[in-house]
Amino acid sequence: MAPFLSKRDLQFQLFEVLDTAGLPQRSRYADHSCEVYTDILNLAYNVAEKYFANHTRAADLNEPHIEGGKVKLVPEAKQAMDAFRDAGFFSAHHDEELGGLQLPWVVMQAVQAHFQAANPGTASYTFLTIGNANLQRVFASPQQQEKYMRPLLEGRWFGTMALSEPHAGSGLADITTTATLREDGTYSLSGTKMWISAGEHELSENIVHLVLARMRGAPAGVKGISLFLVPRYRIGVDGRVGQGDEKQSNHVVLAGLNHKMGHRGTTNTLLNFGEGGETIGEIVGEPGRGLAQMFYMMNEARIGVGMGAVMSGYAGYLASLDYARDRAQGRLPSNKDPHAPAISIIEHADVKRLLLRQKVFVEGGLALGLYAASLVDDLNTGPEVQKADTALLLDLLTPIAKSWPSKYSQEALSDAIQVMGGAGYTRDYPVEMYYRDNRLNPIHEGTEGIQGNDLLGRKLTAGQGRALEVLLERVQTDLKAAETLEGTTEIRAALAQAMQDCTGAIRSILGKAAGLSPDLFLANANSALEMVGHTVVGWMWLRQAMAAARALAQARGDGHFYRGKLQAARFFAVYELPKVKLHADLLASADTTTSDMQPDWF
Amino acid sequence: MAPFLSKRDLQFQLFEVLDTAGLPQRSRYADHSCEVYTDILNLAYNVAEKYFANHTRAADLNEPHIEGGKVKLVPEAKQAMDAFRDAGFFSAHHDEELGGLQLPWVVMQAVQAHFQAANPGTASYTFLTIGNANLQRVFASPQQQEKYMRPLLEGRWFGTMALSEPHAGSGLADITTTATLREDGTYSLSGTKMWISAGEHELSENIVHLVLARMRGAPAGVKGISLFLVPRYRIGVDGRVGQGDEKQSNHVVLAGLNHKMGHRGTTNTLLNFGEGGETIGEIVGEPGRGLAQMFYMMNEARIGVGMGAVMSGYAGYLASLDYARDRAQGRLPSNKDPHAPAISIIEHADVKRLLLRQKVFVEGGLALGLYAASLVDDLNTGPEVQKADTALLLDLLTPIAKSWPSKYSQEALSDAIQVMGGAGYTRDYPVEMYYRDNRLNPIHEGTEGIQGNDLLGRKLTAGQGRALEVLLERVQTDLKAAETLEGTTEIRAALAQAMQDCTGAIRSILGKAAGLSPDLFLANANSALEMVGHTVVGWMWLRQAMAAARALAQARGDGHFYRGKLQAARFFAVYELPKVKLHADLLASADTTTSDMQPDWF
Repeated sequence: MAPFLSKRDLQFQLFEVLDTAGLPQRSRYADHSCEVYTDILNLAYNVAEKYFANHTRAADLNEPHIEGGKVKLVPEAKQAMDAFRDAGFFSAHHDEELGGLQLPWVVMQAVQAHFQAANPGTASYTFLTIGNANLQRVFASPQQQEKYMRPLLEGRWFGTMALSEPHAGSGLADITTTATLREDGTYSLSGTKMWISAGEHELSENIVHLVLARMRGAPAGVKGISLFLVPRYRIGVDGRVGQGDEKQSNHVVLAGLNHKMGHRGTTNTLLNFGEGGETIGEIVGEPGRGLAQMFYMMNEARIGVGMGAVMSGYAGYLASLDYARDRAQGRLPSNKDPHAPAISIIEHADVKRLLLRQKVFVEGGLALGLYAASLVDDLNTGPEVQKADTALLLDLLTPIAKSWPSKYSQEALSDAIQVMGGAGYTRDYPVEMYYRDNRLNPIHEGTEGIQGNDLLGRKLTAGQGRALEVLLERVQTDLKAAETLEGTTEIRAALAQAMQDCTGAIRSILGKAAGLSPDLFLANANSALEMVGHTVVGWMWLRQAMAAARALAQARGDGHFYRGKLQAARFFAVYELPKVKLHADLLASADTTTSDMQPDWF
Repeated sequence: MAPFLSKRDLQFQLFEVLDTAGLPQRSRYADHSCEVYTDILNLAYNVAEKYFANHTRAADLNEPHIEGGKVKLVPEAKQAMDAFRDAGFFSAHHDEELGGLQLPWVVMQAVQAHFQAANPGTASYTFLTIGNANLQRVFASPQQQEKYMRPLLEGRWFGTMALSEPHAGSGLADITTTATLREDGTYSLSGTKMWISAGEHELSENIVHLVLARMRGAPAGVKGISLFLVPRYRIGVDGRVGQGDEKQSNHVVLAGLNHKMGHRGTTNTLLNFGEGGETIGEIVGEPGRGLAQMFYMMNEARIGVGMGAVMSGYAGYLASLDYARDRAQGRLPSNKDPHAPAISIIEHADVKRLLLRQKVFVEGGLALGLYAASLVDDLNTGPEVQKADTALLLDLLTPIAKSWPSKYSQEALSDAIQVMGGAGYTRDYPVEMYYRDNRLNPIHEGTEGIQGNDLLGRKLTAGQGRALEVLLERVQTDLKAAETLEGTTEIRAALAQAMQDCTGAIRSILGKAAGLSPDLFLANANSALEMVGHTVVGWMWLRQAMAAARALAQARGDGHFYRGKLQAARFFAVYELPKVKLHADLLASADTTTSDMQPDWF
């Protein structure tokens, strides 16, 4: 079996590309060191291997189902949760006072990456719980944190986010779940939520739903949406829910399970609130701030979804690489001797192409996800003077960090199947499963369409265009620093060109914006997403190439690894970055091909 | 439920783009007319709807399995075979003396398209049987045809092609199944075949395997391969196999079933020949000609696989189109009124983009598949003087007709899922199944890598370059004829540019060929495939645009349909054809990025 994750590359990304080694100089991380981080990552690998990777296929073949009114998962899922909790990962990034290790977010993201790689379906329960707690840490009152967040940090209760409704998936402005004020200041919730991952299960003592709802009389649209903490079981005055029959239902009722193509380990539910009794919840923060607050979790989840995509793609790459080294088939075109032995398929040019494509997509995606996580650390503990810029850059990168790996890991996984041929198409190997699993990622937590509109409609113009300037400055700084580094010629030239095409197109469309309707301005938002996405990942490849070139210059061992990085950067330069121009042309010209199309003409 | 096929577009392709209406002027089709063809297509639709579409999901959920030593399929599969046989489709294109209707191949391909669209898994049994019989019609002796082909035409027996072996999938030169001459002139076969679709089932009285094997003492490589007719059950002197226990095994033994991600209705087998007794077969034609003969069926199957891909993609497009018209969500960016009703998602620019992408991929693929089929008719019954050119063009187009729709229908199906969001990812709708089904198509009957090598290594240089000239001439003729047609400006300009980039790159690489090793010459074969593929499909869009422009000029009804065709042609011109340049640049420069990559660097 191929490993599900490359420890070597993770070390490279954290300690050679990013300055994770420098973080312990910041007071919050003063007790840390590279060795501490590496030990924690090794622990994550071992837990992921033993308790998550052991049932990925079993969870795929035995999707969650309802038995005796309860959602039944494969039994290994519960053991995985216990192991994750025992390792302390639910709270590892939190303050020591809260039982945490104050891990930097970039290390926490790397920890989570192991579980996403080993078993994305089971990992989702932890992922949602951590995100839910993080939101509470920022917006919930101290009393609420004590009541609802503590048990999540302890891994006793799990969390969800409950946004969509059957008639409102992407269109959250139209949700109709209502919250009615009760005499004691709590709210009574009523409505139906759709696509709620981890919405019902027996993995934890309780489930804390973060629910978007409208207070009675609230205005239409997003301004009328508030956020509520809604437990599955009512919570006693001791903060506990009891056991078995002692538990008192809060009338959040499972109305059905969705049957998905992949990602089957994560149960996905339709939930009725206020069915057969009152569903009682507490409001988080001010009324009408629900969507804005939810976006704290959503933005984290978006980068998390992108990382999940990276890790599925990466696991597929490693599986197909393993196969390509082992499988013998055919000869090079130059060898006409039918008696010559067949060669490993990794020797064939087109197989190399398929492996290089996978390599640039998944390693580029990993670099991006970890870079975004490092910006979170900079926001929390970096130099004060840079924080405004860092926040703008993180916002700008969020839709890309979500959508780019979701899309390109799927291409990588298709290539993984292709490398393995018929074998890859069977359930004897995991790549067909990863391919089904990852196809969810361009859909949930904001579709690709939503991300494109977010990027072009909000992020590229944020801070009077400062967001884009920050990106440009950082890319230029790296381009300059790379000038003396051997082996970076192609990636520098291609990235400079892409950046120029990209900024030219953005300036062109922004220049035209005043004369365009909002509909036409946004008509080519997908091209903006593709164009900026490829450019940003091109930058990530430049940064990897720089680290590799420096290592080779210092003749550190592991030359094959670094040469592979340089060659992959060249591949991204030659095969991928030229695509930026095509999207830039569409965007710059405010192309009307799609908007001119009439529904009746299909 | 959305329809699985667009009757309107099929009529357009056959009778407005292609000159199918003119075929009855040829003597072989003298008894035919447009009405006859349309009646047959309507019959195909009805049979496909009633007997094939009825169990597509059931066959997906209940994949073939072994019960009591027999392969068990869903019972509807047998009823589908009976209906297909009763409609006369197994022999419809054959001579009247053989019980056929002498249908042109383009109409036969359109007939088969219905079954591929409605249920690709079940349709495969008919597809393989028809292809097997077609090979026999050309290469088998009259006695063999009477013995092995007749029952296929009657739909009593079914056929397979048995090429791959566990150690030799793409590398057929290395097969080791052996054939030993017996005293009576027949052969005793021994070996193991892998990936044999329809290799074992209870749908027919007998199965006729077309098996590649090596005679004892034959040379290594492809020159030592011969072709054999191998029945599952021994055939009595009366040409029959008896029933039940009377049947005498020919010792082709099922060794296992492959469990696939999709395309599950088609059972896929591992077969042992000569297990527990002699497997007796007859040689087809001359020894050592096996692979060349097999390619007669293989080439037909390649275009058939491409058509199957088109029809899966098309069915997905229709399903997502139906959903996009029905599903209300959000408002246009210009509408800030939260009280305004939600609009159909087909109104959103990015959904239009996703639908247009699907439209150009599947309708472009359909035009290509039917065009290739029309060339088969021209070869059989067209003007003698053009046949050499037609044969070269058909050979050139075969790898494209196989691989382009396989790849781009998968992109279309991903877009179909994306349009439908979470719904598209569930088993409540068929698109996730089509997506799993079609992922097989870039793999079987020659992977994409094989098709690229075939195109660049053989087809583009065939006839001293005449093949490419024929393509160029035909494109130029259409470009000229379109000059006066309104609404064709973008597609004409983009196609002319693509054709120029394409031929420039081909001439450049051929000019360099003498100085390159065969390995480096073929290193960018995939770019050749992509580049020529997109250009050819651009041509197909020009041809569709021409037919639409003419219809609009004559103010025939159905204006929406024709305007949609013109807009789709524009979309292909603006969004897709510029990609040709990127591949042309890689090919023309004999780029070494992939070949320079070393296996150890991954």
